Amino acid sequence: MTAAGETTGTGTVSDFDVETAVTPRAGQPGVFDAELSERWRIGNGVNGGVLLALAARAMRDAFLAGDPATTHADPLAISAYYLTPAEPGALAAHVEPIRTGRSVSTATVSLRQPGEGSDVERLRAIATFGDLGAVHGEVTTTATPPELPPVEECLSMDQAPPQFLRAASLLERLDLRLDPATAGWAAGRPSGKGEMRGWLRLADGREPDVLMLLLAIDALPPTAFELGLPGWTPTLELSAHVRSRPAAGWLRIVITTRTNSGGFVEEDAEVWDSEGRLVALSRQLARVTPPRR
Amino acid sequence: MTAAGETTGTGTVSDFDVETAVTPRAGQPGVFDAELSERWRIGNGVNGGVLLALAARAMRDAFLAGDPATTHADPLAISAYYLTPAEPGALAAHVEPIRTGRSVSTATVSLRQPGEGSDVERLRAIATFGDLGAVHGEVTTTATPPELPPVEECLSMDQAPPQFLRAASLLERLDLRLDPATAGWAAGRPSGKGEMRGWLRLADGREPDVLMLLLAIDALPPTAFELGLPGWTPTLELSAHVRSRPAAGWLRIVITTRTNSGGFVEEDAEVWDSEGRLVALSRQLARVTPPRR
Repeated sequence: MTAAGETTGTGTVSDFDVETAVTPRAGQPGVFDAELSERWRIGNGVNGGVLLALAARAMRDAFLAGDPATTHADPLAISAYYLTPAEPGALAAHVEPIRTGRSVSTATVSLRQPGEGSDVERLRAIATFGDLGAVHGEVTTTATPPELPPVEECLSMDQAPPQFLRAASLLERLDLRLDPATAGWAAGRPSGKGEMRGWLRLADGREPDVLMLLLAIDALPPTAFELGLPGWTPTLELSAHVRSRPAAGWLRIVITTRTNSGGFVEEDAEVWDSEGRLVALSRQLARVTPPRR
Repeated sequence: MTAAGETTGTGTVSDFDVETAVTPRAGQPGVFDAELSERWRIGNGVNGGVLLALAARAMRDAFLAGDPATTHADPLAISAYYLTPAEPGALAAHVEPIRTGRSVSTATVSLRQPGEGSDVERLRAIATFGDLGAVHGEVTTTATPPELPPVEECLSMDQAPPQFLRAASLLERLDLRLDPATAGWAAGRPSGKGEMRGWLRLADGREPDVLMLLLAIDALPPTAFELGLPGWTPTLELSAHVRSRPAAGWLRIVITTRTNSGGFVEEDAEVWDSEGRLVALSRQLARVTPPRR
């Protein structure tokens, strides 16, 4: 692994790859060690998208360890259940391969951190991997990319409220530009609409790939902010589909919430690449705290 | 368990409950036995929604065995990965509880059938359960129920093409009424729009509950039919959120596909109850066979 300092600029290892790096544990096939830093924090835990990407990397490395020639390196579908907040420090990924098929491979992974006496599980996920480079290129879609003002007319996160920035070191790793139409919350005037739109790339210039898409789907501020629910919205479950490998350049992301019920909201994310392709879809169930009356 | 014959009319056990019944295996905590019939078949396997409901029932029974007073009996979120088609015959559900919390409990389950030499895994799922009766009743939503003609103006499945009916014994268990606007495929004139809408209840009159919603999300013909892709669309992954316990009566279901890419479509389902509440949401990734040219 590379020290977290050597992360900016071209030719060095990206912060994102450092944070999601996993090292096979000697003598324990399927077990990978990682180290979470303070650098991808949001609220009282490490960002859920970072954990998802780390979980996917561990599963992919386990497939590769089982078959170095495997082409099943793209997470077609991944579902994660968030159990307890992950904290900076040591983390172990325990991978169990479930099935290796002709066109896809499936595995499950448990992310654990040392606790008092025994390990505490942070996340359990299942994913099916395939080869997005081998698929036929035919695409038909009625989906349309989100309409966003140009990057330079959107709001960068250094304009976000200080209490939000302090709680989200994650934002220093991202170049995130929010559509002003969905950033009313930052000025105390939420729109009341459950939508958040923005441009995203990594601050250190690392280009998007299928793993980075798993970060992108959970990188924007919660739609609940625009609904006037300013508390944190911890993810209970998140499932994502990666439909295509992304082109280099800015990603466009739109997250939509339609229903707040039973103390939960769903957050539906779409990620579009610079060539105008819908490259990832996700939906999560997140807990909301009702506003105090 | 009750014989599958005693299923129609009031006061007897419903076909759906018979098919999804699980019996704890003596001396093996967390293992449940079930028997799949020929009665819920679609294409070359047993319907994915039936398997999902069975998987959820096994997890719920495992929680109840661990704590008979648990109130975590509603699947808030469930994600299933379909590995191989399930066939009529014996099936075992192996449940591993993951975490029991104050407000939610999480488990994983593996559904297996005897194969040549060893068991063959059919499905692996994770789910988080809670108590939908304990949540505060506040609901805000911008979602609107699907507009459907009255039940009596929709198409019942005995009007479906014979080759479809022969391959789907499932349809005899359902009272499914498709919106004629989304049933063009049945007459060889698919609309080209990725949408399927209909009314659903169980043919034997059993009222919907949270487990039956897991059937409902995967009970309509595939949207691919309306896209002019007449082949079967096996599910790779399906995740569902149950947002509310459904009221008695007809369910309204709408399934939407926007993007066909890389040989896959997503199918987004909404289930609305007779009181006009959005009670379940799901998304699945399904494989499509491109039409022959």
